[in-house]
Amino acid sequence: MVLLSGGLDSATVLAIANAEGYETYALTVRYGQRHDAELHAARAVAHTTGVARHLEIDVDLRAIGGSALTEDIAVPEARVESSDDIPITYVPARNTILLSLALAWAEVLDAGHIFIGVNAVDFSGYPDCRPAFIEAFERLGAVATRAAVEGTPVRVHAPLLELTKAEIIRRGRELGVDYGLTSSCYDPTPEGTACGRCEACELRRRGFEIAGMNDPAGSGSGRH
Amino acid sequence: MVLLSGGLDSATVLAIANAEGYETYALTVRYGQRHDAELHAARAVAHTTGVARHLEIDVDLRAIGGSALTEDIAVPEARVESSDDIPITYVPARNTILLSLALAWAEVLDAGHIFIGVNAVDFSGYPDCRPAFIEAFERLGAVATRAAVEGTPVRVHAPLLELTKAEIIRRGRELGVDYGLTSSCYDPTPEGTACGRCEACELRRRGFEIAGMNDPAGSGSGRH
Repeated sequence: MVLLSGGLDSATVLAIANAEGYETYALTVRYGQRHDAELHAARAVAHTTGVARHLEIDVDLRAIGGSALTEDIAVPEARVESSDDIPITYVPARNTILLSLALAWAEVLDAGHIFIGVNAVDFSGYPDCRPAFIEAFERLGAVATRAAVEGTPVRVHAPLLELTKAEIIRRGRELGVDYGLTSSCYDPTPEGTACGRCEACELRRRGFEIAGMNDPAGSGSGRH
Repeated sequence: MVLLSGGLDSATVLAIANAEGYETYALTVRYGQRHDAELHAARAVAHTTGVARHLEIDVDLRAIGGSALTEDIAVPEARVESSDDIPITYVPARNTILLSLALAWAEVLDAGHIFIGVNAVDFSGYPDCRPAFIEAFERLGAVATRAAVEGTPVRVHAPLLELTKAEIIRRGRELGVDYGLTSSCYDPTPEGTACGRCEACELRRRGFEIAGMNDPAGSGSGRH
Protein backbone atom coordinates (compact mmCIF):
# COMPACT_ATOMS: atom_id res chain seq x y z
CA MET A 1 0.00 0.00 0.00
CA VAL A 2 1.64 3.18 -1.22
CA LEU A 3 0.30 6.67 -0.49
CA LEU A 4 0.52 8.34 -3.89
CA SER A 5 0.04 12.10 -4.13
CA GLY A 6 1.29 12.54 -7.67
CA GLY A 7 4.38 14.38 -6.52
CA LEU A 8 8.01 13.51 -7.08
CA ASP A 9 8.50 11.89 -3.66
CA SER A 10 5.56 9.48 -3.69
CA ALA A 11 6.28 8.44 -7.30
CA THR A 12 9.78 7.49 -6.13
CA VAL A 13 8.41 5.59 -3.14
CA LEU A 14 6.10 3.60 -5.41
CA ALA A 15 9.08 2.65 -7.58
CA ILE A 16 11.03 1.61 -4.47
CA ALA A 17 8.17 -0.61 -3.22
CA ASN A 18 7.93 -2.23 -6.65
CA ALA A 19 11.69 -2.75 -6.78
CA GLU A 20 11.56 -4.45 -3.37
CA GLY A 21 9.17 -7.01 -4.86
CA TYR A 22 5.88 -5.95 -3.28
CA GLU A 23 2.60 -6.17 -5.16
CA THR A 24 1.64 -2.51 -4.92
CA TYR A 25 -1.70 -0.82 -4.22
CA ALA A 26 -1.76 2.94 -4.61
CA LEU A 27 -3.97 5.15 -2.46
CA THR A 28 -4.61 8.76 -3.44
CA VAL A 29 -6.50 10.93 -0.98
CA ARG A 30 -8.41 13.87 -2.45
CA TYR A 31 -8.41 16.18 0.53
CA GLY A 32 -9.59 19.38 -1.07
CA GLN A 33 -6.37 20.42 -2.74
CA ARG A 34 -6.76 23.72 -4.51
CA HIS A 35 -5.83 22.16 -7.83
CA ASP A 36 -6.32 18.92 -9.73
CA ALA A 37 -2.82 18.75 -11.24
CA GLU A 38 -1.65 16.45 -8.44
CA LEU A 39 -4.59 14.09 -8.97
CA HIS A 40 -3.99 13.84 -12.71
CA ALA A 41 -0.33 13.19 -11.99
CA ALA A 42 -1.20 10.46 -9.46
CA ARG A 43 -3.36 8.69 -12.05
CA ALA A 44 -0.65 8.92 -14.69
CA VAL A 45 2.02 7.59 -12.32
CA ALA A 46 -0.20 4.73 -11.09
CA HIS A 47 -1.16 3.82 -14.66
CA THR A 48 2.38 3.70 -16.01
CA THR A 49 3.83 1.96 -12.95
CA GLY A 50 1.47 -0.99 -13.10
CA VAL A 51 -0.07 -1.05 -9.63
CA ALA A 52 -2.48 -3.84 -8.73
CA ARG A 53 -5.10 -1.20 -7.97
CA HIS A 54 -5.34 2.57 -7.61
CA LEU A 55 -7.96 3.82 -5.15
CA GLU A 56 -8.97 7.45 -4.70
CA ILE A 57 -10.71 8.50 -1.49
CA ASP A 58 -12.37 11.81 -0.72
CA VAL A 59 -11.98 13.54 2.60
CA ASP A 60 -12.97 17.15 2.77
CA LEU A 61 -10.23 18.85 4.76
CA ARG A 62 -11.41 22.23 3.46
CA ALA A 63 -14.11 22.05 6.13
CA ILE A 64 -11.36 22.00 8.75
CA GLY A 65 -9.21 24.67 7.12
CA GLY A 66 -5.94 25.97 8.48
CA SER A 67 -3.73 25.64 5.40
CA ALA A 68 -2.88 27.53 2.24
CA LEU A 69 -3.16 24.21 0.40
CA THR A 70 -6.86 23.75 1.14
CA GLU A 71 -8.06 27.30 1.80
CA ASP A 72 -8.14 30.49 -0.16
CA ILE A 73 -4.88 31.76 1.34
CA ALA A 74 -2.06 32.88 -0.94
CA VAL A 75 0.72 30.31 -1.29
CA PRO A 76 3.94 32.04 -0.24
CA GLU A 77 7.12 32.11 -2.27
CA ALA A 78 9.96 29.90 -1.12
CA ARG A 79 10.67 30.69 2.53
CA VAL A 80 13.95 31.65 4.11
CA GLU A 81 15.94 28.47 4.64
CA SER A 82 16.82 29.05 8.27
CA SER A 83 13.24 29.53 9.40
CA ASP A 84 12.04 27.25 12.19
CA ASP A 85 8.41 28.21 11.71
CA ILE A 86 5.85 25.75 10.42
CA PRO A 87 4.88 27.03 6.96
CA ILE A 88 1.32 28.04 6.03
CA THR A 89 1.36 25.24 3.44
CA TYR A 90 1.35 22.73 6.31
CA VAL A 91 -2.02 20.91 6.34
CA PRO A 92 -3.05 20.18 9.95
CA ALA A 93 -2.58 16.52 10.87
CA ARG A 94 -2.42 15.64 7.17
CA ASN A 95 -0.08 12.68 7.39
CA THR A 96 -1.97 11.30 10.40
CA ILE A 97 -5.14 11.36 8.30
CA LEU A 98 -3.44 9.89 5.21
CA LEU A 99 -1.89 7.06 7.23
CA SER A 100 -5.21 6.37 8.98
CA LEU A 101 -6.94 5.90 5.65
CA ALA A 102 -4.05 3.73 4.43
CA LEU A 103 -4.36 1.68 7.61
CA ALA A 104 -8.07 1.11 6.92
CA TRP A 105 -7.50 -0.02 3.34
CA ALA A 106 -4.51 -2.13 4.38
CA GLU A 107 -6.77 -3.87 6.87
CA VAL A 108 -9.40 -4.62 4.22
CA LEU A 109 -6.77 -5.88 1.75
CA ASP A 110 -4.82 -7.72 4.44
CA ALA A 111 -1.75 -5.74 3.36
CA GLY A 112 1.14 -5.82 5.80
CA HIS A 113 3.13 -2.78 4.63
CA ILE A 114 2.36 0.92 4.14
CA PHE A 115 4.79 3.16 2.24
CA ILE A 116 4.76 6.94 2.61
CA GLY A 117 7.03 9.52 1.00
CA VAL A 118 7.64 11.79 3.97
CA ASN A 119 10.97 13.48 4.17
CA ALA A 120 12.60 14.99 7.22
CA VAL A 121 15.41 16.78 5.38
CA ASP A 122 13.51 19.21 3.19
CA PHE A 123 10.40 19.40 5.37
CA SER A 124 11.85 19.84 8.83
CA GLY A 125 9.19 22.46 9.57
CA TYR A 126 6.35 19.91 9.25
CA PRO A 127 5.82 18.08 12.55
CA ASP A 128 4.38 15.00 10.82
CA CYS A 129 7.42 14.48 8.57
CA ARG A 130 9.78 13.41 11.35
CA PRO A 131 11.02 9.92 12.29
CA ALA A 132 9.32 10.18 15.72
CA PHE A 133 5.98 10.64 13.99
CA ILE A 134 6.39 7.59 11.75
CA GLU A 135 7.44 5.47 14.72
CA ALA A 136 4.47 6.64 16.79
CA PHE A 137 2.06 5.84 13.96
CA GLU A 138 3.51 2.36 13.61
CA ARG A 139 3.02 1.82 17.35
CA LEU A 140 -0.58 3.02 17.00
CA GLY A 141 -1.16 0.63 14.11
CA ALA A 142 0.11 -2.20 16.30
CA VAL A 143 -2.94 -1.85 18.56
CA ALA A 144 -5.53 -0.37 16.19
CA THR A 145 -6.51 -3.12 13.79
CA ARG A 146 -7.78 -6.63 13.44
CA ALA A 147 -4.42 -7.74 12.01
CA ALA A 148 -2.69 -6.24 15.06
CA VAL A 149 -5.03 -8.14 17.39
CA GLU A 150 -4.15 -11.28 15.47
CA GLY A 151 -0.43 -10.62 15.89
CA THR A 152 0.64 -9.21 12.52
CA PRO A 153 0.68 -5.42 12.79
CA VAL A 154 1.22 -3.33 9.69
CA ARG A 155 4.71 -1.95 9.06
CA VAL A 156 5.11 1.72 8.02
CA HIS A 157 7.98 2.40 5.60
CA ALA A 158 9.27 5.90 4.93
CA PRO A 159 12.25 5.18 2.64
CA LEU A 160 12.86 8.86 1.82
CA LEU A 161 12.94 10.01 5.43
CA GLU A 162 16.65 10.79 5.54
CA LEU A 163 17.31 11.57 1.87
CA THR A 164 17.88 14.96 0.28
CA LYS A 165 15.77 15.90 -2.74
CA ALA A 166 18.77 15.29 -5.02
CA GLU A 167 19.28 11.81 -3.54
CA ILE A 168 15.58 11.04 -4.03
CA ILE A 169 15.78 12.07 -7.68
CA ARG A 170 18.92 9.99 -8.29
CA ARG A 171 17.31 6.95 -6.68
CA GLY A 172 14.13 7.41 -8.75
CA ARG A 173 16.07 7.77 -11.98
CA GLU A 174 17.90 4.49 -11.25
CA LEU A 175 14.48 2.86 -10.88
CA GLY A 176 13.12 4.39 -14.07
CA VAL A 177 10.67 6.89 -12.57
CA ASP A 178 9.25 9.23 -15.20
CA TYR A 179 9.37 12.55 -13.36
CA GLY A 180 7.74 14.18 -16.34
CA LEU A 181 4.45 12.75 -15.09
CA THR A 182 4.74 14.13 -11.56
CA SER A 183 3.40 17.39 -10.15
CA SER A 184 5.07 19.18 -7.24
CA CYS A 185 3.88 22.79 -7.40
CA TYR A 186 1.69 24.15 -4.57
CA ASP A 187 0.07 26.72 -6.83
CA PRO A 188 -0.13 25.64 -10.48
CA THR A 189 -2.20 27.33 -13.17
CA PRO A 190 -5.57 25.78 -14.06
CA GLU A 191 -3.75 24.01 -16.92
CA GLY A 192 -1.32 22.41 -14.46
CA THR A 193 1.70 24.60 -15.19
CA ALA A 194 4.00 24.97 -12.18
CA CYS A 195 4.41 28.48 -10.72
CA GLY A 196 8.19 28.14 -10.36
CA ARG A 197 8.19 30.31 -7.24
CA CYS A 198 6.67 28.35 -4.34
CA GLU A 199 8.69 26.31 -1.89
CA ALA A 200 7.84 23.01 -3.62
CA CYS A 201 9.01 24.34 -7.01
CA GLU A 202 12.16 25.72 -5.44
CA LEU A 203 13.00 22.44 -3.67
CA ARG A 204 12.41 20.53 -6.89
CA ARG A 205 14.48 22.90 -9.00
CA ARG A 206 17.41 22.72 -6.58
CA GLY A 207 17.06 18.93 -6.29
CA PHE A 208 17.44 18.40 -10.04
CA GLU A 209 20.25 20.96 -10.13
CA ILE A 210 22.24 19.21 -7.39
CA ALA A 211 21.50 15.80 -8.91
CA GLY A 212 22.96 17.17 -12.15
CA MET A 213 19.85 16.31 -14.16
CA ASN A 214 17.23 18.10 -16.19
CA ASP A 215 13.67 18.11 -14.90
CA PRO A 216 11.66 16.37 -17.66
CA ALA A 217 8.62 18.41 -16.56
CA GLY A 218 10.58 21.55 -17.45
CA SER A 219 12.53 23.76 -15.08
CA GLY A 220 10.71 26.50 -13.22
CA SER A 221 7.91 26.91 -15.70
CA GLY A 222 7.04 23.42 -16.95
CA ARG A 223 4.29 21.11 -15.76
CA HIS A 224 5.58 19.88 -12.43
CA MET B 1 -13.59 18.89 20.74
CA VAL B 2 -16.11 16.07 21.03
CA LEU B 3 -16.60 13.37 18.40
CA LEU B 4 -20.38 13.22 18.08
CA SER B 5 -21.96 10.34 16.19
CA GLY B 6 -25.54 10.90 17.30
CA GLY B 7 -25.54 7.72 19.37
CA LEU B 8 -26.16 7.32 23.06
CA ASP B 9 -22.49 7.15 24.00
CA SER B 10 -21.23 10.28 22.26
CA ALA B 11 -24.24 12.31 23.48
CA THR B 12 -23.24 11.33 27.01
CA VAL B 13 -19.61 12.26 26.37
CA LEU B 14 -20.67 15.70 25.13
CA ALA B 15 -22.67 16.23 28.35
CA ILE B 16 -19.65 15.13 30.41
CA ALA B 17 -17.32 17.58 28.60
CA ASN B 18 -19.84 20.38 29.16
CA ALA B 19 -20.22 19.46 32.83
CA GLU B 20 -16.44 19.59 33.23
CA GLY B 21 -16.53 23.21 32.12
CA TYR B 22 -15.09 22.95 28.60
CA GLU B 23 -16.33 25.11 25.76
CA THR B 24 -17.38 22.31 23.42
CA TYR B 25 -16.95 21.88 19.67
CA ALA B 26 -18.73 18.88 18.15
CA LEU B 27 -17.32 17.01 15.16
CA THR B 28 -19.51 14.60 13.19
CA VAL B 29 -17.83 12.54 10.50
CA ARG B 30 -20.05 11.37 7.65
CA TYR B 31 -18.19 8.27 6.65
CA GLY B 32 -20.73 6.65 4.36
CA GLN B 33 -23.04 5.23 6.98
CA ARG B 34 -25.87 3.34 5.37
CA HIS B 35 -28.45 5.60 6.96
CA ASP B 36 -28.92 9.23 7.89
CA ALA B 37 -30.65 8.62 11.22
CA GLU B 38 -27.35 9.01 13.10
CA LEU B 39 -26.58 12.31 11.35
CA HIS B 40 -29.99 13.77 12.12
CA ALA B 41 -29.54 12.64 15.72
CA ALA B 42 -26.08 14.28 15.89
CA ARG B 43 -27.53 17.59 14.72
CA ALA B 44 -30.39 17.42 17.22
CA VAL B 45 -28.02 16.59 20.09
CA ALA B 46 -25.54 19.35 19.14
CA HIS B 47 -28.37 21.88 18.76
CA THR B 48 -30.00 21.18 22.12
CA THR B 49 -26.69 20.90 24.00
CA GLY B 50 -25.42 24.32 23.00
CA VAL B 51 -22.04 23.57 21.46
CA ALA B 52 -19.85 26.48 20.30
CA ARG B 53 -19.83 24.92 16.82
CA HIS B 54 -20.89 21.72 15.12
CA LEU B 55 -18.80 20.69 12.12
CA GLU B 56 -19.63 17.84 9.75
CA ILE B 57 -16.85 16.36 7.61
CA ASP B 58 -17.21 13.90 4.75
CA VAL B 59 -14.85 10.98 4.31
CA ASP B 60 -15.94 8.26 1.97
CA LEU B 61 -15.10 5.02 3.74
CA ARG B 62 -17.43 3.14 1.37
CA ALA B 63 -14.57 3.26 -1.13
CA ILE B 64 -12.47 1.24 1.31
CA GLY B 65 -15.23 -1.17 2.26
CA GLY B 66 -14.89 -4.01 4.71
CA SER B 67 -17.87 -3.35 7.00
CA ALA B 68 -21.59 -4.01 7.16
CA LEU B 69 -22.00 -0.38 8.30
CA THR B 70 -20.68 1.09 5.06
CA GLU B 71 -21.27 -1.66 2.51
CA ASP B 72 -24.28 -3.54 1.27
CA ILE B 73 -23.78 -6.42 3.69
CA ALA B 74 -26.65 -7.51 5.94
CA VAL B 75 -26.31 -6.26 9.52
CA PRO B 76 -26.41 -9.35 11.75
CA GLU B 77 -28.68 -9.82 14.72
CA ALA B 78 -27.12 -9.48 18.17
CA ARG B 79 -24.16 -11.84 18.33
CA VAL B 80 -23.49 -14.49 20.92
CA GLU B 81 -22.01 -12.85 23.99
CA SER B 82 -19.01 -15.08 24.41
CA SER B 83 -17.72 -14.57 20.86
CA ASP B 84 -14.15 -13.32 20.56
CA ASP B 85 -14.52 -12.55 16.87
CA ILE B 86 -14.44 -9.04 15.54
CA PRO B 87 -17.99 -8.37 14.29
CA ILE B 88 -18.80 -7.51 10.66
CA THR B 89 -20.12 -4.16 11.92
CA TYR B 90 -16.54 -3.17 12.77
CA VAL B 91 -15.40 -0.40 10.39
CA PRO B 92 -11.67 -0.82 9.58
CA ALA B 93 -9.52 1.71 11.43
CA ARG B 94 -12.60 3.84 12.05
CA ASN B 95 -11.58 5.36 15.37
CA THR B 96 -8.07 6.04 14.06
CA ILE B 97 -9.63 8.01 11.20
CA LEU B 98 -12.12 9.82 13.47
CA LEU B 99 -9.39 10.80 15.92
CA SER B 100 -7.10 11.95 13.08
CA LEU B 101 -9.79 14.31 11.81
CA ALA B 102 -10.44 15.50 15.36
CA LEU B 103 -6.70 16.10 15.75
CA ALA B 104 -6.69 18.24 12.61
CA TRP B 105 -9.62 20.39 13.71
CA ALA B 106 -8.23 20.62 17.25
CA GLU B 107 -5.00 21.95 15.77
CA VAL B 108 -6.83 24.60 13.74
CA LEU B 109 -8.95 25.66 16.74
CA ASP B 110 -6.03 25.41 19.15
CA ALA B 111 -8.14 23.03 21.24
CA GLY B 112 -6.23 21.04 23.84
CA HIS B 113 -8.68 18.22 24.50
CA ILE B 114 -10.43 15.59 22.37
CA PHE B 115 -13.32 13.55 23.80
CA ILE B 116 -14.41 10.24 22.27
CA GLY B 117 -17.13 7.85 23.41
CA VAL B 118 -15.34 4.55 22.93
CA ASN B 119 -16.21 1.80 25.33
CA ALA B 120 -14.15 -1.27 26.11
CA VAL B 121 -16.85 -3.13 28.04
CA ASP B 122 -19.55 -3.56 25.42
CA PHE B 123 -17.22 -3.42 22.41
CA SER B 124 -14.41 -5.70 23.43
CA GLY B 125 -14.40 -7.17 19.93
CA TYR B 126 -13.37 -3.84 18.34
CA PRO B 127 -9.58 -3.39 18.47
CA ASP B 128 -9.84 0.41 18.43
CA CYS B 129 -12.09 0.58 21.49
CA ARG B 130 -9.42 -0.50 23.97
CA PRO B 131 -7.40 1.58 26.45
CA ALA B 132 -4.14 0.65 24.67
CA PHE B 133 -5.48 2.20 21.47
CA ILE B 134 -6.46 5.48 23.14
CA GLU B 135 -3.06 5.69 24.84
CA ALA B 136 -1.23 5.02 21.55
CA PHE B 137 -3.23 7.70 19.78
CA GLU B 138 -2.42 10.22 22.49
CA ARG B 139 1.28 9.39 22.10
CA LEU B 140 0.95 9.87 18.34
CA GLY B 141 -0.75 13.24 18.88
CA ALA B 142 2.19 14.27 21.06
CA VAL B 143 4.52 14.22 18.04
CA ALA B 144 2.09 14.90 15.16
CA THR B 145 1.03 18.52 15.45
CA ARG B 146 2.21 22.08 15.66
CA ALA B 147 0.88 22.30 19.25
CA ALA B 148 2.90 19.21 20.11
CA VAL B 149 6.04 20.76 18.63
CA GLU B 150 5.36 23.82 20.74
CA GLY B 151 5.05 21.70 23.88
CA THR B 152 1.29 21.43 24.43
CA PRO B 153 0.11 18.12 22.98
CA VAL B 154 -3.60 17.39 22.79
CA ARG B 155 -5.13 15.16 25.46
CA VAL B 156 -7.50 12.36 24.43
CA HIS B 157 -10.33 11.66 26.88
CA ALA B 158 -12.44 8.50 26.73
CA PRO B 159 -14.61 8.88 29.82
CA LEU B 160 -16.84 5.88 28.97
CA LEU B 161 -13.96 3.47 28.46
CA GLU B 162 -14.61 1.36 31.55
CA LEU B 163 -18.35 1.91 31.99
CA THR B 164 -21.16 -0.52 31.25
CA LYS B 165 -24.04 0.69 29.08
CA ALA B 166 -26.25 0.98 32.16
CA GLU B 167 -23.63 3.11 33.94
CA ILE B 168 -23.35 5.34 30.87
CA ILE B 169 -27.12 5.84 30.81
CA ARG B 170 -27.28 6.64 34.52
CA ARG B 171 -24.44 9.17 34.17
CA GLY B 172 -26.13 10.78 31.17
CA ARG B 173 -29.46 11.05 32.93
CA GLU B 174 -27.79 12.80 35.87
CA LEU B 175 -26.43 15.31 33.37
CA GLY B 176 -29.78 15.80 31.64
CA VAL B 177 -29.03 14.04 28.34
CA ASP B 178 -32.17 13.64 26.23
CA TYR B 179 -31.71 10.09 24.94
CA GLY B 180 -34.91 10.49 22.93
CA LEU B 181 -32.80 12.46 20.42
CA THR B 182 -30.12 9.80 20.00
CA SER B 183 -29.89 7.00 17.44
CA SER B 184 -28.09 3.73 18.15
CA CYS B 185 -29.47 1.22 15.63
CA TYR B 186 -27.11 -0.21 12.99
CA ASP B 187 -29.96 -0.86 10.57
CA PRO B 188 -32.89 1.55 10.97
CA THR B 189 -35.77 1.96 8.52
CA PRO B 190 -35.58 4.87 6.06
CA GLU B 191 -37.75 6.82 8.54
CA GLY B 192 -35.18 6.29 11.28
CA THR B 193 -37.03 3.62 13.25
CA ALA B 194 -34.69 1.24 15.09
CA CYS B 195 -34.74 -2.41 14.04
CA GLY B 196 -34.72 -3.70 17.63
CA ARG B 197 -32.69 -6.75 16.65
CA CYS B 198 -29.10 -5.69 15.88
CA GLU B 199 -26.32 -5.71 18.45
CA ALA B 200 -26.56 -1.94 19.03
CA CYS B 201 -30.31 -2.15 19.73
CA GLU B 202 -29.79 -5.13 22.02
CA LEU B 203 -27.02 -3.37 24.00
CA ARG B 204 -29.17 -0.29 24.34
CA ARG B 205 -32.28 -2.23 25.41
CA ARG B 206 -30.34 -4.12 28.07
CA GLY B 207 -28.59 -0.93 29.22
CA PHE B 208 -31.87 0.82 29.92
CA GLU B 209 -33.27 -2.32 31.53
CA ILE B 210 -30.32 -2.69 33.92
CA ALA B 211 -30.35 1.05 34.64
CA GLY B 212 -34.03 0.63 35.57
CA MET B 213 -35.16 3.31 33.15
CA ASN B 214 -37.38 3.60 30.12
CA ASP B 215 -35.77 4.41 26.78
CA PRO B 216 -37.39 7.71 25.73
CA ALA B 217 -36.80 6.72 22.09
CA GLY B 218 -39.04 3.70 22.70
CA SER B 219 -37.93 0.20 23.52
CA GLY B 220 -37.07 -2.16 20.69
CA SER B 221 -39.20 -0.48 18.07
CA GLY B 222 -38.93 3.29 18.68
CA ARG B 223 -36.63 5.78 17.00
CA HIS B 224 -33.24 5.00 18.50
